[in-house]
Amino acid sequence: MSLDRPKNKWFSELLTPDLILCSSIIAAPHSSKTPYQAVEIIQTGSFGWCFVLDGKVQSSDADEFIYHEALVHLPMLTHPDPKTVFIAGGGEGAVAREVLRHATVESLEMVDIDEDAVRVCREYLPARSQGAFDDSRLRLHFNDAVRFLKSTSVKYDVAIFDLADPVEDGPAYLLYTQDFYRLALQHLNPNGVAVVQAGNCNAILHREVFTAIYNTMRTVFPMVYSYSASIPSFGGMWGFVVGSMGPDPRALDAQTIERRLVERVTSPLAFYDGITHEGMLNLPKYLRVAMEEETRIISEKNPLFVY
Amino acid sequence: MSLDRPKNKWFSELLTPDLILCSSIIAAPHSSKTPYQAVEIIQTGSFGWCFVLDGKVQSSDADEFIYHEALVHLPMLTHPDPKTVFIAGGGEGAVAREVLRHATVESLEMVDIDEDAVRVCREYLPARSQGAFDDSRLRLHFNDAVRFLKSTSVKYDVAIFDLADPVEDGPAYLLYTQDFYRLALQHLNPNGVAVVQAGNCNAILHREVFTAIYNTMRTVFPMVYSYSASIPSFGGMWGFVVGSMGPDPRALDAQTIERRLVERVTSPLAFYDGITHEGMLNLPKYLRVAMEEETRIISEKNPLFVY
Amino acid sequence: MSLDRPKNKWFSELLTPDLILCSSIIAAPHSSKTPYQAVEIIQTGSFGWCFVLDGKVQSSDADEFIYHEALVHLPMLTHPDPKTVFIAGGGEGAVAREVLRHATVESLEMVDIDEDAVRVCREYLPARSQGAFDDSRLRLHFNDAVRFLKSTSVKYDVAIFDLADPVEDGPAYLLYTQDFYRLALQHLNPNGVAVVQAGNCNAILHREVFTAIYNTMRTVFPMVYSYSASIPSFGGMWGFVVGSMGPDPRALDAQTIERRLVERVTSPLAFYDGITHEGMLNLPKYLRVAMEEETRIISEKNPLFVY
Amino acid sequence: MSLDRPKNKWFSELLTPDLILCSSIIAAPHSSKTPYQAVEIIQTGSFGWCFVLDGKVQSSDADEFIYHEALVHLPMLTHPDPKTVFIAGGGEGAVAREVLRHATVESLEMVDIDEDAVRVCREYLPARSQGAFDDSRLRLHFNDAVRFLKSTSVKYDVAIFDLADPVEDGPAYLLYTQDFYRLALQHLNPNGVAVVQAGNCNAILHREVFTAIYNTMRTVFPMVYSYSASIPSFGGMWGFVVGSMGPDPRALDAQTIERRLVERVTSPLAFYDGITHEGMLNLPKYLRVAMEEETRIISEKNPLFVY
Repeated sequence: MSLDRPKNKWFSELLTPDLILCSSIIAAPHSSKTPYQAVEIIQTGSFGWCFVLDGKVQSSDADEFIYHEALVHLPMLTHPDPKTVFIAGGGEGAVAREVLRHATVESLEMVDIDEDAVRVCREYLPARSQGAFDDSRLRLHFNDAVRFLKSTSVKYDVAIFDLADPVEDGPAYLLYTQDFYRLALQHLNPNGVAVVQAGNCNAILHREVFTAIYNTMRTVFPMVYSYSASIPSFGGMWGFVVGSMGPDPRALDAQTIERRLVERVTSPLAFYDGITHEGMLNLPKYLRVAMEEETRIISEKNPLFVY
Repeated sequence: MSLDRPKNKWFSELLTPDLILCSSIIAAPHSSKTPYQAVEIIQTGSFGWCFVLDGKVQSSDADEFIYHEALVHLPMLTHPDPKTVFIAGGGEGAVAREVLRHATVESLEMVDIDEDAVRVCREYLPARSQGAFDDSRLRLHFNDAVRFLKSTSVKYDVAIFDLADPVEDGPAYLLYTQDFYRLALQHLNPNGVAVVQAGNCNAILHREVFTAIYNTMRTVFPMVYSYSASIPSFGGMWGFVVGSMGPDPRALDAQTIERRLVERVTSPLAFYDGITHEGMLNLPKYLRVAMEEETRIISEKNPLFVY
Repeated sequence: MSLDRPKNKWFSELLTPDLILCSSIIAAPHSSKTPYQAVEIIQTGSFGWCFVLDGKVQSSDADEFIYHEALVHLPMLTHPDPKTVFIAGGGEGAVAREVLRHATVESLEMVDIDEDAVRVCREYLPARSQGAFDDSRLRLHFNDAVRFLKSTSVKYDVAIFDLADPVEDGPAYLLYTQDFYRLALQHLNPNGVAVVQAGNCNAILHREVFTAIYNTMRTVFPMVYSYSASIPSFGGMWGFVVGSMGPDPRALDAQTIERRLVERVTSPLAFYDGITHEGMLNLPKYLRVAMEEETRIISEKNPLFVY
Repeated sequence: MSLDRPKNKWFSELLTPDLILCSSIIAAPHSSKTPYQAVEIIQTGSFGWCFVLDGKVQSSDADEFIYHEALVHLPMLTHPDPKTVFIAGGGEGAVAREVLRHATVESLEMVDIDEDAVRVCREYLPARSQGAFDDSRLRLHFNDAVRFLKSTSVKYDVAIFDLADPVEDGPAYLLYTQDFYRLALQHLNPNGVAVVQAGNCNAILHREVFTAIYNTMRTVFPMVYSYSASIPSFGGMWGFVVGSMGPDPRALDAQTIERRLVERVTSPLAFYDGITHEGMLNLPKYLRVAMEEETRIISEKNPLFVY
């Protein structure tokens, strides 16, 4: 990020048709097209190295800890004793990395459809997985998550859906449907918890997807909660939706979270702790209203796409 | 925001030297230079009408309610009975609008340095003030806030600093100093509360300003608290710092906030309520760490500037 | 073009899918949609006031004299004695302005399809027409050029096609066809000359349109010539194609052009003179090769579009 | 240039403070800082591989033939029998490549200050030099051109100044001065010809540099001529200035040029031939007027810089 570098190469991501976020490019060493999506590796002046799928930043050096800690630790600590975990997507290995920090975890099954994308990420961004792919508890399958779950009767304590945003012709949009959530529910143990990254939740800009995912989850899971975290490289506030067979993240106060962290997670976290847990779950009023007013239900027959 | 509109005119704001946020322009009817700053009125496809000073969006149709409710209602409801209020800046009239919703308020003194900017805003964006300028409780002074406060011994219950970011050669950077906060403290009644908008608080991108303002406030006020809200048109998470002579916003639970809202604020709010109050005050761990590790103190002799 | 103006509003024109020209915006007072096209009036820091149709700059303060003098005076001076002139398009009035400088002209018939666009241009850019619309020799028709020519048997000495680029769904693409050129030919007197603006002719970027228009004209007119001029606000070299019933612009040396200018055009020109005439007609080798190798013929059945 | 490639990485070159040309980036494999300048290698969707110094495109796959043929062959063919040639700059090797096509050339001396830039160019863009660096007639010196010429009394038939634009703190601005041209004149044989690339000559945008170089050359050389070529990747019309001890390029008609090409240059050219020669020398009227009205003279004491 030398001052001498010309600021003349820019990466632009269309957050909406009317809003573009541009990051200065330091290097752009990789761009390819897998059978499923366009894959890019870009080093930016604002966020360091970024992993980009179909033009959308999936993670950056600067703030991937926020996204991955938010996605993983809230559902993991909400569960009383998560031993078996399922990940759909998560090809960078960073979700696995965070899951495997939990001493309770005995086995982790991860299903990502795009072997090429995983290979690119492991080559250019090994710090994302930090050895997670070599952990003996992990089994990695290159497969479609729907096909995988339909082919097995295994049940999990926690299921994490770290999927690319639902874009038209993209590999993931069918995994944002009522149909998939029903399938996922069948693979949860009692007390099971599932979490899905649910896109930008600024509401003003992106109400469509976040609130619709929330509403769709509510048609499937007995209990549904949402929370958010600000992720600068994604262009703002990011939403997550938890579906639960029983455990309630709202019932856990900061002290309980801190205690469970001490008991279960050995290495220190940077983003998540008890106070963060409470903050994430308290969404602002206009967003809670938008969630309550949402009526759409996403299904294979009526899919929904982000811009 | 017609689909037929060519997407060929863009407003770009440099959030950092390496990060630009671009909004499509629908109309750009005003651009002028006052003695203090460059003033622009822009209608964007992403956020509607925007008020822009020295190239930085001050407010937009789409999310000014978030910024102004966050800035005003948390300190106002933290105070047990705010009767007299002081605003530095706030030329759009939206801070005054929110203050005047409080039935407890008997007098409001507002000092903005830039009469031309206020005039432009009233002409193009009357919905910002919604008649606040005509409220008999308001007295508006076009003056430098330092000079104004030095010329009077009046004390206030709540002081709100809605200032443009501290940019070099800008009109506001001296109002982000220990010197100014000391002056402000002298004009607070017992139980008095002061609040300052403190810039982007993504930490990753902008730690410099937000944490330095927090640390500077801590050298002046007996009690200091920070909170945040996500404001899309500002490009992310925004920080606020409260300095208090006694009342503690953390001591107020959601129920107390709700009760005070019913008692004091007649019209319904869109962003702020009890749950939002709790959420705003719970900053994520990395940001709290950055605040604790901050050592710089901003003063007239050592001012600090945003990019 | 004050130095104090923030450089934060930009007009972008996609010259190709891989090349964008961005001009700083000073003001953007008008944007509308007529039944035929999107119309914008923009003041830029680079070129002054611009007239924009469907996102493409049609003319700018800075260099409209180049485009309009190149388009008009070469064919007008090629003709031995042009008395009657026809313009298709040219809604700004600048083509008419240049034609009416010629003392030989007795009548000028102008057909533009878009009355709204003409009105916007006259309101915001009166310097384009400079009173041409009030000249008693001009008759202006708001009509489709094909329909107009089919409805009349009048013949002209010079026909000038100042049409928006052929864009899909645009109003002009049918006027870039063999069919239209045949229709035009029927409305030329002996010694008649027709000229068409033929788009960017950098060849490298835009061979498709320019060379195809040239080749199509060659299937209709007994003699066809091409020439070019560099027009910065259009993003480079611009091509023109002349179809002639007899007069040969290449046969006119600089001295002859100068003499005809003295005899016929009273006011001084800024771009065009004898030397310019010779320079414009001498296209570089690679472009002449591309023209010779072109085989496509544009017709109503096989229309061609620019990006 | 696959259609599947996301159009989300852009290279931007500021042509003026108010005008930016943006090319889509396919790859950006190299960016470095030599002791003299910032060097970048970029593959663009619009122009293929580009060589970039201090943020300015020096050449592109798509149109480097235009620039290099225009720069080299007009002065080379203007000279009656060029045996010894001097190049200042030209680190890519493409000027040498074009010079060495001339069968008359017995020795070529090339002085470029930046060995690192030459190495980068040879590594990434070997097609620029096409073996020229291995031609036994070439001697390459990594040196300052002023120091080199001051250290020798050798004289040349043709001198070619292929220098980066004169930017402040750049390596080349002293080579655009009266002082340097006087030094160069002392190193020309009778009948000697010197040529300098003189920047954008759209006049409207860039009159400063082109016309000032022309006027400065006129204070040194007995005969001075200018010519131009449209180079899309440079953003428009490019100017060249020839200083001559005797031979006059205007006195050579197309037939003479064609004959000399046959006699001297074995391999076929793409841009330059007799007609192109005549076209390049005939600048439009407004530009000739701007050249005549220019009064500034560039010197070491009064240097001139492009934006």
